[in-house]
Amino acid sequence: MKTENLIGYQYKGGKKTFKAIDPASDKELDGDFHIASQEDVDEALTLAENAFASYRYLDKKAKATFLRNIAEEITNLGDELIERAIAESGLPQGRLQGERGRTTSQLNMFADLVEEGSWVEATIDSAQPNRQPAPRADIRKMLVPVGPVVIFGASNFPLAFSVAGGDTASALAAGCTVVVKAHPAHPGTSALVGEAIKKAAERNNLPEGVFSMLYDDGYAVGEALVNHPKTKTVTFTGSYRGGTALVKLAQEREHPIPVFAEMGSINPTILLPEALENRYQEIAEQYAASITLGAGQFCTNPGLLIAIKSPVTDKFKQALGEAIEKVASSTMLTPGISKNYSNLFEEMLQEQGVSMIGTSANINREKANQARPVVAEVSASSFIVNPKLREEVFGPYSLLVTADYEVQLQQVVDALHGQLTASVVADEGDLKKYKDLIQGLVNIAGRVILNNVPTGVEVIPSMQHGGPFPATTDGRFTSVGTGAIKRFARPVAWQNWSNDLLPDELKDGNPLEIWRMVDHKWTKE
Amino acid sequence: MKTENLIGYQYKGGKKTFKAIDPASDKELDGDFHIASQEDVDEALTLAENAFASYRYLDKKAKATFLRNIAEEITNLGDELIERAIAESGLPQGRLQGERGRTTSQLNMFADLVEEGSWVEATIDSAQPNRQPAPRADIRKMLVPVGPVVIFGASNFPLAFSVAGGDTASALAAGCTVVVKAHPAHPGTSALVGEAIKKAAERNNLPEGVFSMLYDDGYAVGEALVNHPKTKTVTFTGSYRGGTALVKLAQEREHPIPVFAEMGSINPTILLPEALENRYQEIAEQYAASITLGAGQFCTNPGLLIAIKSPVTDKFKQALGEAIEKVASSTMLTPGISKNYSNLFEEMLQEQGVSMIGTSANINREKANQARPVVAEVSASSFIVNPKLREEVFGPYSLLVTADYEVQLQQVVDALHGQLTASVVADEGDLKKYKDLIQGLVNIAGRVILNNVPTGVEVIPSMQHGGPFPATTDGRFTSVGTGAIKRFARPVAWQNWSNDLLPDELKDGNPLEIWRMVDHKWTKE
Repeated sequence: MKTENLIGYQYKGGKKTFKAIDPASDKELDGDFHIASQEDVDEALTLAENAFASYRYLDKKAKATFLRNIAEEITNLGDELIERAIAESGLPQGRLQGERGRTTSQLNMFADLVEEGSWVEATIDSAQPNRQPAPRADIRKMLVPVGPVVIFGASNFPLAFSVAGGDTASALAAGCTVVVKAHPAHPGTSALVGEAIKKAAERNNLPEGVFSMLYDDGYAVGEALVNHPKTKTVTFTGSYRGGTALVKLAQEREHPIPVFAEMGSINPTILLPEALENRYQEIAEQYAASITLGAGQFCTNPGLLIAIKSPVTDKFKQALGEAIEKVASSTMLTPGISKNYSNLFEEMLQEQGVSMIGTSANINREKANQARPVVAEVSASSFIVNPKLREEVFGPYSLLVTADYEVQLQQVVDALHGQLTASVVADEGDLKKYKDLIQGLVNIAGRVILNNVPTGVEVIPSMQHGGPFPATTDGRFTSVGTGAIKRFARPVAWQNWSNDLLPDELKDGNPLEIWRMVDHKWTKE
Repeated sequence: MKTENLIGYQYKGGKKTFKAIDPASDKELDGDFHIASQEDVDEALTLAENAFASYRYLDKKAKATFLRNIAEEITNLGDELIERAIAESGLPQGRLQGERGRTTSQLNMFADLVEEGSWVEATIDSAQPNRQPAPRADIRKMLVPVGPVVIFGASNFPLAFSVAGGDTASALAAGCTVVVKAHPAHPGTSALVGEAIKKAAERNNLPEGVFSMLYDDGYAVGEALVNHPKTKTVTFTGSYRGGTALVKLAQEREHPIPVFAEMGSINPTILLPEALENRYQEIAEQYAASITLGAGQFCTNPGLLIAIKSPVTDKFKQALGEAIEKVASSTMLTPGISKNYSNLFEEMLQEQGVSMIGTSANINREKANQARPVVAEVSASSFIVNPKLREEVFGPYSLLVTADYEVQLQQVVDALHGQLTASVVADEGDLKKYKDLIQGLVNIAGRVILNNVPTGVEVIPSMQHGGPFPATTDGRFTSVGTGAIKRFARPVAWQNWSNDLLPDELKDGNPLEIWRMVDHKWTKE
């Protein structure tokens, strides 16, 4: 495992280093990771810009091969990767093996997408030389990559949203070059994956600088990366504070750039009466599992349940409390996250009208940084007047809000900020009775879910992982699924160029056999 | 002509008023236009939000009819509209008749687009109930409208980028409701068009608030509109200063919103040696016409010409000077724009190394606010070190930058900010010799043009009218052409909903017969 900064194809040491911590033991792990300097930032972005000049034009098959080779190199890392990721994240082996599978699948999915090629939205309007009063020139448009992208590794997906995660896969697929700021919680995992990408780039003789990766245990390197004039776009998954700070930096640049920040959600779920009546026990168990999955460290964790006060809601509450009691504690990603979680749920329990429904009776005393699953409750009237209760508690926590009457359900929804997801648990009568309430959820979320939990984000074309602010900074884009590539491209129109000078995607005869809109019609001709 | 603020279906007067000025005479025109109050802003946006709740679900045929009816009502205004627009803008009759045609065509184009329906990018991934280790739910995604949109009328297109211009047409087409801030340079034109939209909305029994229009001759109403929490998106076409001020306001909101600002460009054109050798006279005449078209008041005006020093470039220069001399002056849009233009080109002529090539010998002394066409020149070395010379001079002005040697051409291009367009005038030998330079123009512009002038922006699907900052605030979007609708929509995914609860666009059997991506394949099935 190399512990120096990866700048193009070179490893470069620095003056200061830091170590990874095993959150299950609070002990330092092997490896002194080198903190990047301002010069390293500049060098990485200069290489990234130089590499972009040729990488952007890489043949679509060659780009697909590169992405598939990254997936292969990650698989080749074998147990070493999983073991290091377990040690650095506290996540269990099965989860990390699954996450590795998701990571390689994402890379292969983007390889398929670029190899197929239609994602560039090629659009052609033929010339009209005889148009009156003036002729119309031939105009053809397609998406082109924006340039070097800075990607912040996320703590909660050490593989699937980190060094070779969805952001990197989609940026490289778009034809952008990438500089990753490795997350300090898992530098060793990052080092291994970074080297896998380097190997894949070398196997394909790609220009040096197509990928670089820098370390820092503070904020200076991240800030320098966002401020660097060669950076064209930034992605980030993390806290509201972190995300909005990066947006501010990016907006204050001489030439502002977009920051795609995913900043968390409380993912409201409305539990409607008939469904609770018919199957409160099953719903309680399903939600207890979703709330505590991965120690609740998912951006789609159901942190808010909304129901109407009734005897059956009381039964559901009891069942939920009992289900939560049975869930064992689990190790959180970092000591900092663990401490924040404990502080925040304790604070929530002190808020006006909030009381505990249930908490885990099964806390592992042998391991450090254990997240205690907690479910609390509050009345809708207390919830509506207290903005604090709408904040995300990152961890295995959920708050049940109980409305006194039906209209209050809508008032609770109206009090919410933008969300990644909004869910409804409903049976047939509920769907008719609460039609407007249910339909209105589209206004606050990027994904609306019926009788399903929000956790488990599928990596498919129809996925939307991005919602109105503050769930993400730009709800018009997604960070999961094939649509994620659109964050890294912009349209360019070519006017009056001869066929041989146009990109292949726009040439007469459609040599790449992609879907195109030609004179207002979709066609593969 | 009603001169009060149009709030939903009601006209409401205010305490203060202002008058329009005829720029050709500097005289006040008929009509006291009422300045909106903060209450008017709030009422317009409250109505817009209420109307959005139902207008967003309007059947696609009904929406298309509404857009076509707006076009009809504008046509029905007849000569009154053209006469008022001439008086308020100083633009000639032919231009305004053409612009009216473009305005109604845009409305009809968006009517066709929404009636066809595929613009929502419907994407379906079928359930996989037997997938291991966990089943996959049915997920379906499409674009939905974002909510109330605030549109600032532009001074330079009193019809096509004003009250019922491309922004309004595309926002209404997306299913958004609209509040227009009328441009104070043409309030009477705005009043007539606003009433046409009101009539069309009434004819279709649309909810009150689908459209409102407010007046102000200052900044307070615009600021209040951008700050209002119900506003979801803003569009603006104007100056860099105006655009960046609105972005700052929008970013400082509790929930930031996008501002699509088009802030002007100098639209570089590279004139290559072989082309100049073969046809310098023709090129000079073509560019003299493009530079002075509409008194140079186009965002795609070619404000920068770049060539290599040579005897033929000297001949081109002389021909350009002579061509410019022959162009008559014309009335600018407002006294303020006219004054700014004179000041700015005079300032430019004082800059180090800048000298005049030619100016109009034909200034109309009978009319006020006449723009004097001016072409100046400067060496590449002076240009590269002087940021002032890269600023837009809004009016019939262009600067010829002469490089001492070939490599300097690239240095001039590298010194430029983001642009709406970049053009090349080249013959066969040039295309081979300067391949890299030409190809690199994609990096700085949204539209790249060969042997064609940048003015004359076609309204078609392949148009890209938006470039890297500061040409626009978001080069991933266009404000002209069918793509403009994408500014007003965001994707939403529906997970695990039964067929009857899904929007028609996503239902099994494709009842709307639109193009959809179903299980990774584009199909109309």
